[in-house]
Amino acid sequence: MSKIEFLDTTLRDGAQAVGINFSQCDRASIFKLLDGFGISLIESGVANPKDREFFKAVSSERLVAFSATRHRDKNVQNDEALNDVLDANTSTVCVFGKADGRQAKRVLGVSTDENLNIIADSVRYLRSNGRRVIFDAEHFFDGYLYDAAYALKVLEVAVQAGADTVVLCDTNGGTMPWQIYDAVKEAVAFLPKDIRVGIHAHDDCGMAVACSLMAVQAGATHVQGTFLGFGERCGNASLCTVIANLQLKMHVDCGCDLKKLTSTAHSIAEIANIGLQSSMPYVGAFAFAHKAGMHVDAVLKDEHSFEHISPASVGNEHRLILSEVSGRSAVSYKLQELIPDVDRLSPQTKQILDKIKQLEKDGFQFDTADGSFSLLAKRLLGTYTPSFELVGYDIKESQPDGISAAEVSIKVGDTVTSAKRNGNGPVNALDAALRDALTRCYPQIASITLSDYKVRVLDFASATGAMVRVLITSTDGKDSWTTVGVSTDVIEASWIALKDSFEYKLNGGGRA
Amino acid sequence: MSKIEFLDTTLRDGAQAVGINFSQCDRASIFKLLDGFGISLIESGVANPKDREFFKAVSSERLVAFSATRHRDKNVQNDEALNDVLDANTSTVCVFGKADGRQAKRVLGVSTDENLNIIADSVRYLRSNGRRVIFDAEHFFDGYLYDAAYALKVLEVAVQAGADTVVLCDTNGGTMPWQIYDAVKEAVAFLPKDIRVGIHAHDDCGMAVACSLMAVQAGATHVQGTFLGFGERCGNASLCTVIANLQLKMHVDCGCDLKKLTSTAHSIAEIANIGLQSSMPYVGAFAFAHKAGMHVDAVLKDEHSFEHISPASVGNEHRLILSEVSGRSAVSYKLQELIPDVDRLSPQTKQILDKIKQLEKDGFQFDTADGSFSLLAKRLLGTYTPSFELVGYDIKESQPDGISAAEVSIKVGDTVTSAKRNGNGPVNALDAALRDALTRCYPQIASITLSDYKVRVLDFASATGAMVRVLITSTDGKDSWTTVGVSTDVIEASWIALKDSFEYKLNGGGRA
Repeated sequence: MSKIEFLDTTLRDGAQAVGINFSQCDRASIFKLLDGFGISLIESGVANPKDREFFKAVSSERLVAFSATRHRDKNVQNDEALNDVLDANTSTVCVFGKADGRQAKRVLGVSTDENLNIIADSVRYLRSNGRRVIFDAEHFFDGYLYDAAYALKVLEVAVQAGADTVVLCDTNGGTMPWQIYDAVKEAVAFLPKDIRVGIHAHDDCGMAVACSLMAVQAGATHVQGTFLGFGERCGNASLCTVIANLQLKMHVDCGCDLKKLTSTAHSIAEIANIGLQSSMPYVGAFAFAHKAGMHVDAVLKDEHSFEHISPASVGNEHRLILSEVSGRSAVSYKLQELIPDVDRLSPQTKQILDKIKQLEKDGFQFDTADGSFSLLAKRLLGTYTPSFELVGYDIKESQPDGISAAEVSIKVGDTVTSAKRNGNGPVNALDAALRDALTRCYPQIASITLSDYKVRVLDFASATGAMVRVLITSTDGKDSWTTVGVSTDVIEASWIALKDSFEYKLNGGGRA
Repeated sequence: MSKIEFLDTTLRDGAQAVGINFSQCDRASIFKLLDGFGISLIESGVANPKDREFFKAVSSERLVAFSATRHRDKNVQNDEALNDVLDANTSTVCVFGKADGRQAKRVLGVSTDENLNIIADSVRYLRSNGRRVIFDAEHFFDGYLYDAAYALKVLEVAVQAGADTVVLCDTNGGTMPWQIYDAVKEAVAFLPKDIRVGIHAHDDCGMAVACSLMAVQAGATHVQGTFLGFGERCGNASLCTVIANLQLKMHVDCGCDLKKLTSTAHSIAEIANIGLQSSMPYVGAFAFAHKAGMHVDAVLKDEHSFEHISPASVGNEHRLILSEVSGRSAVSYKLQELIPDVDRLSPQTKQILDKIKQLEKDGFQFDTADGSFSLLAKRLLGTYTPSFELVGYDIKESQPDGISAAEVSIKVGDTVTSAKRNGNGPVNALDAALRDALTRCYPQIASITLSDYKVRVLDFASATGAMVRVLITSTDGKDSWTTVGVSTDVIEASWIALKDSFEYKLNGGGRA
């Protein structure tokens, strides 16, 4: 039991953050990422039909269904929330109750004794149905500071009813790290040795990560949070940061694949359509960035001068800003797939890096757009042959008839081919028309489908006149590749990414 | 000396953050804000001419000039950096030297003894020129963990040479809060009673705020940071959060006007042209926002249920956010602005909540789209009067000529008005044409500008045929409101949001 267990609640607490709204497909993707990274427990709610559908779609030992304890006026057998949790059919469930008597009275309208009954009944019911029960003691720390005996009693009642894990929640996020340490230490001493004590911290004082680690220092072996810290108000403890600290600083084996930390963080942010803070610890784009000057100089002499860990250990890299040295290794590493004998000092590496830097200034992004990177390199290396040329396109859209139409003319060799298609939007029409025209000359592209289309507005200040970045991911059933386009015009940006998605395949994919 | 002293280094360490670049005017404005809030020491560098000009432009007892200790090959009298610091003519100066012998050797190329001489000479020179001297012990904690005796010796040397404050810097941000606590405690015990011990923390482990508070718990009485946490890599400790915690949680009088906390934070972010994180502790737009139904319900019953402090104490306010997870309480609370006598049991509340839930299933999102919520409510309550009707629009876009044009016809009363405009994309052209047509009938909309435009692809499995959600934020210089549109067609989704952004204003804004 010594190993620390993590419960990620991005899909439940995280979804309560303002601006976060997960589709069913988003949920499944996030689940897969957390699972692949090694998070042992992944929580989701059962409050509404969309929530409940998720448990039918995904089945995994790691999935945890979450709910309130029974309503004060119901018995467990006919309490909807508890039965919804059982219907989710997970081996582990998490149920929460109040550990602060004042809140039980004011918010639930029950006496402190009734509150204990509610908790005992609910935990016992879930346990008797064969579930492993985690009990979240809501408002534990506020309750503990007000009436420690009652707060501890709540934990005891949950344990006696069958919970094997009790989680001390700093629900309002207002507790200081040393207060967390003292209270966790007392709870650990108070409870039987085989009971896991957990921590659930919020960031209202900007210390959720520190509070989580202080709890571990005091004996907690279960940590709840959301991977990127999404959550109500100021958010939850970021498990991404907590796990990196535990594994790299406190040398606790967390059972996670830390090399995937940065990519997992960026993928989740992408799915949530939240720009990942560049300054985010460990995984941010600037977490190991050094501006020109003394720091750059020192880092070149000795990596440890201004870096507390090796960026590679979390799958990140250091960046020397305003310095051409940044990125050469990464570029030459990628180039080796196309020209095996290239290295970081080759002239091609510098030429391509310079071009990437210039395009990134214009809003392009190559860290995920592997298809566009490969085409860019081939163009600069002179090994690219255009498969077609755009003669022109015309897009028409009108209301109230609701028609979106695109006509595309392309030239392959000396032959001009045109195709006209309607779509359920201008980009969809353009995609269909280009595909029609191309298939006549290149029947092999019939196997290519677009699997992902993303739009991001880059420059908020100029509103509808702002730069837009489009990322398109395509697949032929075997490989999958991403291309990028940038323009103030969403159609033009889409065109650039669309054109390259076909050119990538027609130019031999990722091979030379 | 018991009172805690703060040194803000937004203008120096903050300016080293990637993406931050202050003009002379920006610096003066930030200085004024920090001064008005009550920060006792405000630091700026002297490294380049622009830096030095600032000290001529602003004169204040609070201003602190910052520099390195002398170069290893120079004596103090002809060391440029030290003389530039003296030329800045401030009563307090801050000078930094290395507290880790390994770094002195590797980066400065000097022996550990030479390093002590450099520090002693530099501090003595500044002190003998009448300055109060603060000594920043760079890499103190790494140095302390490697060789505590040497790290403490560095502090002793600085104090003996005349520094009245020694600041323990976690330069790489890699130290755990309990390590900070132990080291500060030892330094405080080691040094004479009349010497201030300070803390300078970085956020590379996401714990800069906690580390600063732990240092205060251990006896530190000087805290360095940047108001919003700007700084190299992951940033510095955010003084804004540190001060709120100290004053509200630890009841330390910080001499600051906490009611100005939120406005000061937003103004500095504005000047730095950095979007303030909505989840930022104490001052973020969502720091006291509640979205989940149960939370909203509880907060309305008892503010303390899910708020650790009163938002008004830091000049912020609470917000009840609408979404499919919010319940009747949030809806009725919001509705009260439109119909004062509505409550959570009113039939209108249920009707509107049901409509919101249905629209959210279709991809709409109301948690940030307050403008669309207000229009939706008015439509259902029958108090909405359409200001115009769409007769139709035609969008044309063609390549290679690169033209995007929109023609919009609207009907106001019995009059049909049309306008045609080009734009740098179809949505931009549509926006311009609608604005032209509308202004003829409603001159007041000339004051409305779009300040934010966001596009989100909702269901990436269907690629370019996927649903798209557009959020538009508009302002008339006083109020600001957000509207939402959803469609498979990005132009149509934009149209819905665009139309509502004008209708919101023409229908009396958020009023009945």
